[in-house]
Amino acid sequence: MEKLKNILSLYKRGQIEMDEVLGHLRKLPYEDLAFAKIDHHRTLRRGFPEVVFGETKSAEHIIAIVRSMEDFGTGVLVTRVHENKAAQVMEHFPHMIHHREARALSLAKRTVQTPQGVVGILCAGSSDIPVAEEAAVTVQFMGCHVKKHFDVGVAGLHRLLDLWEELQDCHVFVVAAGMEGALPSVVGGLVNCPVIALPTSVGYGAAFGGIAALLGMLNSCAPGVSVVNIDNGFGAGYLAAMIARSAGASPGGTGE
Amino acid sequence: MEKLKNILSLYKRGQIEMDEVLGHLRKLPYEDLAFAKIDHHRTLRRGFPEVVFGETKSAEHIIAIVRSMEDFGTGVLVTRVHENKAAQVMEHFPHMIHHREARALSLAKRTVQTPQGVVGILCAGSSDIPVAEEAAVTVQFMGCHVKKHFDVGVAGLHRLLDLWEELQDCHVFVVAAGMEGALPSVVGGLVNCPVIALPTSVGYGAAFGGIAALLGMLNSCAPGVSVVNIDNGFGAGYLAAMIARSAGASPGGTGE
Amino acid sequence: MEKLKNILSLYKRGQIEMDEVLGHLRKLPYEDLAFAKIDHHRTLRRGFPEVVFGETKSAEHIIAIVRSMEDFGTGVLVTRVHENKAAQVMEHFPHMIHHREARALSLAKRTVQTPQGVVGILCAGSSDIPVAEEAAVTVQFMGCHVKKHFDVGVAGLHRLLDLWEELQDCHVFVVAAGMEGALPSVVGGLVNCPVIALPTSVGYGAAFGGIAALLGMLNSCAPGVSVVNIDNGFGAGYLAAMIARSAGASPGGTGE
Amino acid sequence: MEKLKNILSLYKRGQIEMDEVLGHLRKLPYEDLAFAKIDHHRTLRRGFPEVVFGETKSAEHIIAIVRSMEDFGTGVLVTRVHENKAAQVMEHFPHMIHHREARALSLAKRTVQTPQGVVGILCAGSSDIPVAEEAAVTVQFMGCHVKKHFDVGVAGLHRLLDLWEELQDCHVFVVAAGMEGALPSVVGGLVNCPVIALPTSVGYGAAFGGIAALLGMLNSCAPGVSVVNIDNGFGAGYLAAMIARSAGASPGGTGE
Amino acid sequence: MEKLKNILSLYKRGQIEMDEVLGHLRKLPYEDLAFAKIDHHRTLRRGFPEVVFGETKSAEHIIAIVRSMEDFGTGVLVTRVHENKAAQVMEHFPHMIHHREARALSLAKRTVQTPQGVVGILCAGSSDIPVAEEAAVTVQFMGCHVKKHFDVGVAGLHRLLDLWEELQDCHVFVVAAGMEGALPSVVGGLVNCPVIALPTSVGYGAAFGGIAALLGMLNSCAPGVSVVNIDNGFGAGYLAAMIARSAGASPGGTGE
Amino acid sequence: MEKLKNILSLYKRGQIEMDEVLGHLRKLPYEDLAFAKIDHHRTLRRGFPEVVFGETKSAEHIIAIVRSMEDFGTGVLVTRVHENKAAQVMEHFPHMIHHREARALSLAKRTVQTPQGVVGILCAGSSDIPVAEEAAVTVQFMGCHVKKHFDVGVAGLHRLLDLWEELQDCHVFVVAAGMEGALPSVVGGLVNCPVIALPTSVGYGAAFGGIAALLGMLNSCAPGVSVVNIDNGFGAGYLAAMIARSAGASPGGTGE
Amino acid sequence: MEKLKNILSLYKRGQIEMDEVLGHLRKLPYEDLAFAKIDHHRTLRRGFPEVVFGETKSAEHIIAIVRSMEDFGTGVLVTRVHENKAAQVMEHFPHMIHHREARALSLAKRTVQTPQGVVGILCAGSSDIPVAEEAAVTVQFMGCHVKKHFDVGVAGLHRLLDLWEELQDCHVFVVAAGMEGALPSVVGGLVNCPVIALPTSVGYGAAFGGIAALLGMLNSCAPGVSVVNIDNGFGAGYLAAMIARSAGASPGGTGE
Amino acid sequence: MEKLKNILSLYKRGQIEMDEVLGHLRKLPYEDLAFAKIDHHRTLRRGFPEVVFGETKSAEHIIAIVRSMEDFGTGVLVTRVHENKAAQVMEHFPHMIHHREARALSLAKRTVQTPQGVVGILCAGSSDIPVAEEAAVTVQFMGCHVKKHFDVGVAGLHRLLDLWEELQDCHVFVVAAGMEGALPSVVGGLVNCPVIALPTSVGYGAAFGGIAALLGMLNSCAPGVSVVNIDNGFGAGYLAAMIARSAGASPGGTGE
Repeated sequence: MEKLKNILSLYKRGQIEMDEVLGHLRKLPYEDLAFAKIDHHRTLRRGFPEVVFGETKSAEHIIAIVRSMEDFGTGVLVTRVHENKAAQVMEHFPHMIHHREARALSLAKRTVQTPQGVVGILCAGSSDIPVAEEAAVTVQFMGCHVKKHFDVGVAGLHRLLDLWEELQDCHVFVVAAGMEGALPSVVGGLVNCPVIALPTSVGYGAAFGGIAALLGMLNSCAPGVSVVNIDNGFGAGYLAAMIARSAGASPGGTGE
Repeated sequence: MEKLKNILSLYKRGQIEMDEVLGHLRKLPYEDLAFAKIDHHRTLRRGFPEVVFGETKSAEHIIAIVRSMEDFGTGVLVTRVHENKAAQVMEHFPHMIHHREARALSLAKRTVQTPQGVVGILCAGSSDIPVAEEAAVTVQFMGCHVKKHFDVGVAGLHRLLDLWEELQDCHVFVVAAGMEGALPSVVGGLVNCPVIALPTSVGYGAAFGGIAALLGMLNSCAPGVSVVNIDNGFGAGYLAAMIARSAGASPGGTGE
Repeated sequence: MEKLKNILSLYKRGQIEMDEVLGHLRKLPYEDLAFAKIDHHRTLRRGFPEVVFGETKSAEHIIAIVRSMEDFGTGVLVTRVHENKAAQVMEHFPHMIHHREARALSLAKRTVQTPQGVVGILCAGSSDIPVAEEAAVTVQFMGCHVKKHFDVGVAGLHRLLDLWEELQDCHVFVVAAGMEGALPSVVGGLVNCPVIALPTSVGYGAAFGGIAALLGMLNSCAPGVSVVNIDNGFGAGYLAAMIARSAGASPGGTGE
Repeated sequence: MEKLKNILSLYKRGQIEMDEVLGHLRKLPYEDLAFAKIDHHRTLRRGFPEVVFGETKSAEHIIAIVRSMEDFGTGVLVTRVHENKAAQVMEHFPHMIHHREARALSLAKRTVQTPQGVVGILCAGSSDIPVAEEAAVTVQFMGCHVKKHFDVGVAGLHRLLDLWEELQDCHVFVVAAGMEGALPSVVGGLVNCPVIALPTSVGYGAAFGGIAALLGMLNSCAPGVSVVNIDNGFGAGYLAAMIARSAGASPGGTGE
Repeated sequence: MEKLKNILSLYKRGQIEMDEVLGHLRKLPYEDLAFAKIDHHRTLRRGFPEVVFGETKSAEHIIAIVRSMEDFGTGVLVTRVHENKAAQVMEHFPHMIHHREARALSLAKRTVQTPQGVVGILCAGSSDIPVAEEAAVTVQFMGCHVKKHFDVGVAGLHRLLDLWEELQDCHVFVVAAGMEGALPSVVGGLVNCPVIALPTSVGYGAAFGGIAALLGMLNSCAPGVSVVNIDNGFGAGYLAAMIARSAGASPGGTGE
Repeated sequence: MEKLKNILSLYKRGQIEMDEVLGHLRKLPYEDLAFAKIDHHRTLRRGFPEVVFGETKSAEHIIAIVRSMEDFGTGVLVTRVHENKAAQVMEHFPHMIHHREARALSLAKRTVQTPQGVVGILCAGSSDIPVAEEAAVTVQFMGCHVKKHFDVGVAGLHRLLDLWEELQDCHVFVVAAGMEGALPSVVGGLVNCPVIALPTSVGYGAAFGGIAALLGMLNSCAPGVSVVNIDNGFGAGYLAAMIARSAGASPGGTGE
Repeated sequence: MEKLKNILSLYKRGQIEMDEVLGHLRKLPYEDLAFAKIDHHRTLRRGFPEVVFGETKSAEHIIAIVRSMEDFGTGVLVTRVHENKAAQVMEHFPHMIHHREARALSLAKRTVQTPQGVVGILCAGSSDIPVAEEAAVTVQFMGCHVKKHFDVGVAGLHRLLDLWEELQDCHVFVVAAGMEGALPSVVGGLVNCPVIALPTSVGYGAAFGGIAALLGMLNSCAPGVSVVNIDNGFGAGYLAAMIARSAGASPGGTGE
Repeated sequence: MEKLKNILSLYKRGQIEMDEVLGHLRKLPYEDLAFAKIDHHRTLRRGFPEVVFGETKSAEHIIAIVRSMEDFGTGVLVTRVHENKAAQVMEHFPHMIHHREARALSLAKRTVQTPQGVVGILCAGSSDIPVAEEAAVTVQFMGCHVKKHFDVGVAGLHRLLDLWEELQDCHVFVVAAGMEGALPSVVGGLVNCPVIALPTSVGYGAAFGGIAALLGMLNSCAPGVSVVNIDNGFGAGYLAAMIARSAGASPGGTGE
């Protein structure tokens, strides 16, 4: 930014011509102009700067990143941290919370916001819970309410139908399922708001590590359903929170 | 058979030794011994000798096959016969019935049997009807009752639930679906009898010509569900009739 | 409903016992209780009852469906209608609009609503336009504003960056792309609202009819991106309108 | 149920109007009406309430589930329990049986039923035995007779043909095979009753973990064959028992 | 060749040094040395120079190729020539034979050889016949005896077993099958000579254009089985003839 | 650009503050700054502005695009134009050249450049020629020399080895092959410059429309080989010309 | 056999009628008639009864099998035995040979035969050696000569061409290759005898565990090439020995 | 070579005829003529004889190979050597360099060359670094300059755009990316020189171990992009160096 200011000063003082200014502008790194600002904007608006994908990083690496963010004064969410690694990281941050089932760590230092918008999170079987919990932790970290109901798969439909009344005020659903991945279609046919289908790698044989569920969800015959990557609980939760927050801010909202 | 009888006669009359008989037996074509009988058995028991797969055969070829069977005195079912070919074949057999939606022809010359066993045939969308009808025609041809309910897909679950009462007395279900293929799982969770999942090639994009439905069905979380090939209405109907007939013959049956 | 009322009347008059009422309730078709109502609710809230998937239906079939809906007093949207079929249908409905590029027909008889919410619709290449237009027509039919910018693929990034300012007030984006399907990731990195990735079957060779684009989008490294089926313009548009309408009703909305 | 009774009492006493009753009925959780009953029905009829899929559960979790079921007075079947986990669970239930090859545990506390129906269980090679045994244990747990013949693959056809006589009285077959998965087709051509093809993940290279066997079975040229998921011994056994029990109850049955 | 002779002459006459000769040799096109000879060798030994793959060539193109070969004095085999194209080609070569079912043309002008070796050619269903016939025509063109038995699929095993005696003197088998492709495994278990498995694209749904058959054959549990490309009748026949001719020349041979 | 100049003028005249200038700069469309210039640069440097992909465009559309480019004074290359469409387009541009085998049209109006760099273009079979020719036309259009040798597949290696001497001065190779796609590996082992492997969709059965060739090329054991999309002759030619032109401009070049 | 003799004795003595004999014959286990003989025949002719696939068997299991075969007086070949298991087995059989690279064990107790026929075994890279060695050990165990040349891949073609002279007297080739699997095509173009292509799982990334090599080999443009399963060294060797032995017995053979 | 000299001497002395010389020439091993020379040429020109693929080799094996090359006086590059193995090898070669992130070892004994040509190496995320570093080490080993910029993925486009100016003088780019693999397309749209797309196996779920990235790159809409195998850093670096060196030797080059 200083460089740009200097150029404009020189130009104003008549020491360089307008053509020269234009030439400089063409070559300036983009961040000095606009993109850095865009990026800054995004941080402020979203309410959290970066989420750390913990799976491929060492404990030391995670600790360093969290420390730098902590200093910056924002909250931090670390996903896919397995037991041991989580313990190592926790030692350095006494206020950190370990979401065991979600395999996540969070540090909520930022100023507290009033939760806004409601996200329903459902999953088909008990093996889908870690992925569904990752979505739930993400949604809460982004400042939305969560309503969780696990183990409501289509082979026992009554469990799902029992929840019908209670789920009326959700603004969006995250529906996790492995195996045949049919739950999002069924939910999509019952509700009137967006359904984010979250395929999990649960199953064996022709489940092919989540491909069967993924294909089932992409081909859902219920409109209003879209899909994220297999086991991508964070991605589903992030998108759901985006949708719920803007819907929740509305006087009418989705539910009525 | 004559050859075998001659050998035994010669042996009895002492014209050949036991070793020689044994040597002959080792070399005799198998059909003279047992298999032809097996095959004959099967024809009688099943009530229909061969089903003609019409798709890859010319009208002339089909006419010749039907004629030879007609003479034999049994009924004939020809599957996958498209409009024009069907018309050509019909000209030669005044009593033949054209099942237009099922793309099938049948000739019911055999002695009438009392229908036995009930097969429920459901399909998810209107595009699945030809395949479901092929299953229905097959089931009826094999001498079972059929209860058909089409267009009861999971995106409008209430249509399916409305049928609950009526479907209680079926001994087995054929459930056809394309796209995400979720219907058999939902049906399998509601009923207490075998469900034959019949994937169809209906859908576009990631439906991959029925693969998505097929995988969904193979991964069904409801027990009691098995799967046949994509668009194989005949195969599903044949198996369903096998199951329904033996269950229907029982005093207790499946239901309740 | 009448049946249920009769039962309750009989019970009140003491003509049947409570046990008998409970027995009847267990057996009543579900629609008489709750589901029909749910379904009715959905129609009213959504503002359009059913969309007709025209690809697999004959012109006669489509005409009959549209007529019955027309009488019902609601609007109708028919998707995937090719040139000739569209012309046949148009003859019967003078007020119908033919969206040629979108391969859709619409009949807007219902009472006009004020559009609510803004959906940005982008596509990567000119061959993606029919699918993107299908999404656009759907969004408008559902009562949202649309901002369309086509042919802004990643190989000429400046075309996309030029639009940055103008796209700030969108509440959600539909981003269609074939081939490598990279555009949704790039857009997802630039904006702060949900991005619905819409893979198209455009491309050849290893594009595999949209699989490459689909996989690229599912693996997007930008959060806030979800995916619908290949070429499913209607599905993307429907979901986008769902999101935009509830966000657009909010005083704050999504954008800053 | 109590809630429903109260409403009806209030209505009878004139304390609420019919409209109010109808309103309540619309909102009552479904289980109070019909579904719980359905579910209850199923438990009673099937003779076993739930099968526990042990693979993804800890020993502690399994022990807790088994205990709660034990109290309920029904039998329990736990599948996919490996050596160590099985030992841990066994310590708590002295009457439990460990089916080592099938990797299953069973607790047969319920009142003994007379076995009904006969299931033939065949497998192609010695590596298919664990999956075939899982099917066998399931069938027996559900109260049917089992006839097992392992290692009768198509490369040594005479081993299979030798069994022909003995297998005549089976009501249904479970045929497990890996590699090329040809055995169900051959069996399907020899017998006159349903064949449940059970692909196993046995093989290497282009066996692709069971895909080759699965595809082979789906394309079987013998009618009466349907397929379950790869290595799904439980699913095959469950379905076979369903079929055998209703067929076995019949005076005529399949075999004659 | 002239160039090489000149160099050697110059060297002999002392006009160039040995080093120069060696230098030239290093740069000479390979055909002048050895490869052309190799190629010539192959033509002579094999008994036919080139087979023309007709599918992607115009009638004019085929006519020109056949004419040039005819002049050369060798026989010609043209594969994959459909009806019309065949008729056009036939007009120019009065002695050409049209193998209709095999979709092939042959011109047998070369000196007649005594057939040597016996190739058994089997196929599973009537739709496999064109591919099996292509193999048969190729085998005969290469100078071997052929024993053909079609429609002997595994679903009716007795048809195959009946042939057992007659097939004892074959030196090699070509076994064509579509769908589940199980026939080569069964044949491989019955005979003691090489089996060339020939997958065909016959089938529908999960046959995937021959992939199911191909995988089944690659995973054959019978030793002595190898596989060629889907529908590659020519390739299977060519290889079978190679094997049969050298085995047939032996006094002992393969059989018995 | 005018907008930017005005802002700077206002600033110089003191009518706006530096902060205001910076604010404007942040929001200006990017093209006014730098990207339009980049794009302009690219056009000038490359020597041709846009290549028109003709396959998905109507003749009218192509004519309009070519006309606008013609006016701009640059050359035009239209790829994938089939016979009829090409004829329609040719009528409007008398100087256009139709490259029949390459299915391309070119208009060479721009000032003639001296060709620079040599590209060797090889293909394995005669069916690969259209794709190889598309590469060749592209290379020539971009101003490089081409050496073409078709039908030099690995099954007749001597044809390839004969060319060894002649190919020594190529700076890069495009090697097209279908079926098993082995040719690029063999060429890559013989030459010392980059090899662009171009898989074609030629073949049948397990060629899977070019997948076999594509995989073979990606797994090439020869270093210096990279791969483009199936049938992407234009892409291979474009990249080859890029490499050849900069290598050809060098005094030393690639070869020795 | 005794049972059959008894029946015939009874018949001869007039104690049973011919019909009764025929009835018994229909039901006799097949082995008593012919198949056991077939099986016995095969053992004698092949020279080795069964090969033991060691990978999925415990050391104890292998020891038991070998012991029973040893007593029978025939040789034994155990494939896929890893280091530790091999050591355990070796302790019990002092005369057993451990083929370390081939991961095989052999016990050659049978009477020595004169080797007959020559099999050339080539492989592309050093990682393919274990699979190629498995083929070599199998071939030698079956009584053929082996010529091995490893590491002769297509990226260094001269290594292969150098062997040309030496390989002239082989009757058949086994050619193992991973990665792009091009070597069998090149060999197939150079030689005049059958080539058994043996894909290996060597490679990474898009080698997909041998699929790339497998597809390359199936699509070989050289006739006379057939393919076995990925890493199936035993299968390739077995088939090669079958071919070589009958060709080697011939006075002319293949080579000349 | 001696053999050839003897033949020529004999011929010169008149002891053999020219025909005999020609005969001998046809049979001489190829290496004595030309190929060994070719191979020698390649070594000299490339500047490094062989790269050792360390992954599948033992430390002992690698040490032996490096020692033999060291004696030959050339440099050595060993790729894919994990921590422990690297340590073992390092003990024997004090001057060896361990490129830890690239998992490579190099020994630079050969005479130092002036680096020539500039290769830009970019990667999308921090998990792609090992593969990108392997490319970088290879490029440097081959004597080119490297400009590395890691973690510049498309979800934060400004990071990439900031580098625009600095990357102007690269002659070729290696662009590594996992997940959706979009970065090469974006780079290809910004630069005017070849882009080698290097897919990595980074990602989860539908990333399928690099397939999504690979397909994305093959379908790149930017011309000038070609692709190497998944994780093949060495191959990408080798090809890039080939291109950069000949372009870098040119006075004009690519960049300006």
